[in-house]
Amino acid sequence: MKSDLDALMEARGLDGLIAWVEEVYSPPVDYLTNGARITQGLVIRKRGAEPLLVANPMEVEEAAKSGLDVVTLTDLGFYDLLETLKDREQATVQAWGRALERAGLSSGTLALYGTADVQKAVALVRAIESALPQYHFFAETGINARDLFAEAYSTKGDDELRRLRSVAARTDEVLQATWDYIASHRLDGERVVDSAGQPLTIGDVKRFVRRALLDRDLEDTDMIFAQGRDAGFPHSRGEESAGLVSGLPIVFDLFPREFGGGFFHDVTRTWAPGYARLEVQDIYHQVMDAFDVAVESYRSGMATKDMQIAVMDYFEGKGHPTSRSTPGTSEGYTHSLGHGIGLNIHERPGIGHLSPDHFQPGNVITIEPGLYYPEREIGVRVEDSLYIDASGQLLPLTRFKKDLVIPLKKLGE
Amino acid sequence: MKSDLDALMEARGLDGLIAWVEEVYSPPVDYLTNGARITQGLVIRKRGAEPLLVANPMEVEEAAKSGLDVVTLTDLGFYDLLETLKDREQATVQAWGRALERAGLSSGTLALYGTADVQKAVALVRAIESALPQYHFFAETGINARDLFAEAYSTKGDDELRRLRSVAARTDEVLQATWDYIASHRLDGERVVDSAGQPLTIGDVKRFVRRALLDRDLEDTDMIFAQGRDAGFPHSRGEESAGLVSGLPIVFDLFPREFGGGFFHDVTRTWAPGYARLEVQDIYHQVMDAFDVAVESYRSGMATKDMQIAVMDYFEGKGHPTSRSTPGTSEGYTHSLGHGIGLNIHERPGIGHLSPDHFQPGNVITIEPGLYYPEREIGVRVEDSLYIDASGQLLPLTRFKKDLVIPLKKLGE
Repeated sequence: MKSDLDALMEARGLDGLIAWVEEVYSPPVDYLTNGARITQGLVIRKRGAEPLLVANPMEVEEAAKSGLDVVTLTDLGFYDLLETLKDREQATVQAWGRALERAGLSSGTLALYGTADVQKAVALVRAIESALPQYHFFAETGINARDLFAEAYSTKGDDELRRLRSVAARTDEVLQATWDYIASHRLDGERVVDSAGQPLTIGDVKRFVRRALLDRDLEDTDMIFAQGRDAGFPHSRGEESAGLVSGLPIVFDLFPREFGGGFFHDVTRTWAPGYARLEVQDIYHQVMDAFDVAVESYRSGMATKDMQIAVMDYFEGKGHPTSRSTPGTSEGYTHSLGHGIGLNIHERPGIGHLSPDHFQPGNVITIEPGLYYPEREIGVRVEDSLYIDASGQLLPLTRFKKDLVIPLKKLGE
Repeated sequence: MKSDLDALMEARGLDGLIAWVEEVYSPPVDYLTNGARITQGLVIRKRGAEPLLVANPMEVEEAAKSGLDVVTLTDLGFYDLLETLKDREQATVQAWGRALERAGLSSGTLALYGTADVQKAVALVRAIESALPQYHFFAETGINARDLFAEAYSTKGDDELRRLRSVAARTDEVLQATWDYIASHRLDGERVVDSAGQPLTIGDVKRFVRRALLDRDLEDTDMIFAQGRDAGFPHSRGEESAGLVSGLPIVFDLFPREFGGGFFHDVTRTWAPGYARLEVQDIYHQVMDAFDVAVESYRSGMATKDMQIAVMDYFEGKGHPTSRSTPGTSEGYTHSLGHGIGLNIHERPGIGHLSPDHFQPGNVITIEPGLYYPEREIGVRVEDSLYIDASGQLLPLTRFKKDLVIPLKKLGE
């Protein structure tokens, strides 16, 4: 939680931290600026003090929306430094040094965070340590290193939960709209077609979903919509040109976020157009049972790995290989049970059989058991997002139904 | 250009490079994998050898589309290492070491590239140098350090230009559709309204544009659509709830890319609904003249700064402050003239008055003069993307008209 940041910094011996954004959406800057849309800049946070936002003068109006103290690169003399030094790196180093002074950090141990160009990051850290030896950069390394922001993100405050609920509700609407869209089609033999007999392709469905998301100020971050053999590879996106067919399972894994970057939702449904083959029904029911096994195994404060172990015990009891019984297997139950979600699609806690995490109030997580047999054209996964309330109860965020078969009329009916 | 990579590596003393992707779109991985949609992995490129792609076993089918040699984390024993070492960082370090061996790099100087978590990057580089001292990581630091990929990206090959042309043509269509959408509205006094008299807001226009992009397999990366005072701040995105009004200029800066990450286009138009105030017309014509000054100043192989200097001379001659006459100014001509585009929205060459770059065949650039007077509710920018062909000619990629006024009927007409 944000209120943990001072303690998390102290535990790592950090006097200050720098969150960096440079054209690419950078979660820690969103986190510290309360969602202001800054595309270039720094947030410097001295331990125990209010953060300082260093902004490009072109973004000063957006920067003000953060509610933070703002200083621009012009205020710091960056452009004069550029003229004098004629070197962008040295001007940047000197400007960052001035910004650190403004934030009350005249020396000490710092750490750099954000999503950005890693080559520039490594170079900047070395250049600052060389030109401004009063600063030392900490890196989160060593046995089971735990990232400071990852720790903070893992428990959500009320403001964050409110945004996550809103994304969840809008995602539910998109699932219903997509179900209805497919259900408005027809079967022509094995093929799913429109009323004029034209095949419905995966590309058509994805375009429909993306528009439905946009209409609700959400954006797709590369959904999975894959059928048959492709569904058997958990991360295959699906072939745009492939037409939907009846009987075989479609894995539809949707993980949209607030438009332009922000909070995610994460949900998977497995759908069979028209009907499901018997073998598909059987696998589907086992995955649904595994979902229930996971939820029923939950106890407040438990080790997350025990939930995955309960699911692995269940699947192995049904004769499926798992990544515990057969490390690296690409058949059976091949992945972890779930993960936290927030400003990143994968956050803590992890729910794998080797995870060191425990469930805590404020966690927002996915539970997503699945079974994969690509050579038999089968992949099935069912996933909800859930949260743990202040009293330790596990409650659903996703509300959409978990039906397998989308009923379809025959062409001409 | 891709074919320059060996020479660029040699110039930096690199024996190998690692391009990294971890959930966030990472341009150098796209570049080296020919657009395969890998969300987690490495490309290791030994100088003078074919690259090796290290993939998550869940993405092995997508990885194969790269045409590269593929090795999975399972092949490298990563999951066994995780079980044995019980530490993700050490397992990662050992797996990367094994991958480097497979790529023919048993020691030497390496560099890490990509868009990713910078804290993890700094930590990984330190952990590898500590655990595997046969490797040393180079960082692009020092006077006017030039990034290896930035150098390669700055000149495009035929395949890249083909994709850039396609994005340009689709963006032109979206501009026309947006013009037509606004032109289908009415004026009610100063307000732009629909046929029922409801105000047309910036949010409405942005949603229209995003749908029009999606229909063409493009995605918005946070367009600017800002009117009046907001238009006077070059990076203000515009207020969603604000209604369009007549007379004042709208800065519409659209820089979409291939859906899910890929090549960008970049174009800006300034539009005035219904009519343009005289002062706006005057500023607009000066910006259009500056655009012509820029294009006419072009000579094959010239220093890019000379193009910006020609534009600054023109604007200063008209009495406007520029970032040369008044460093850090927020009025007048406040930014650089343009930049390269490609897999990143800002690439080389830069076209600022301090840029060290020269124009070269294969460059794809923007030219985007502008004038900003927020206190007078004026911002005007006009931008095309252009390319330099093999003979050194500067040719347009953007084709859409540069008209200022969108004619509007009165409500009830």
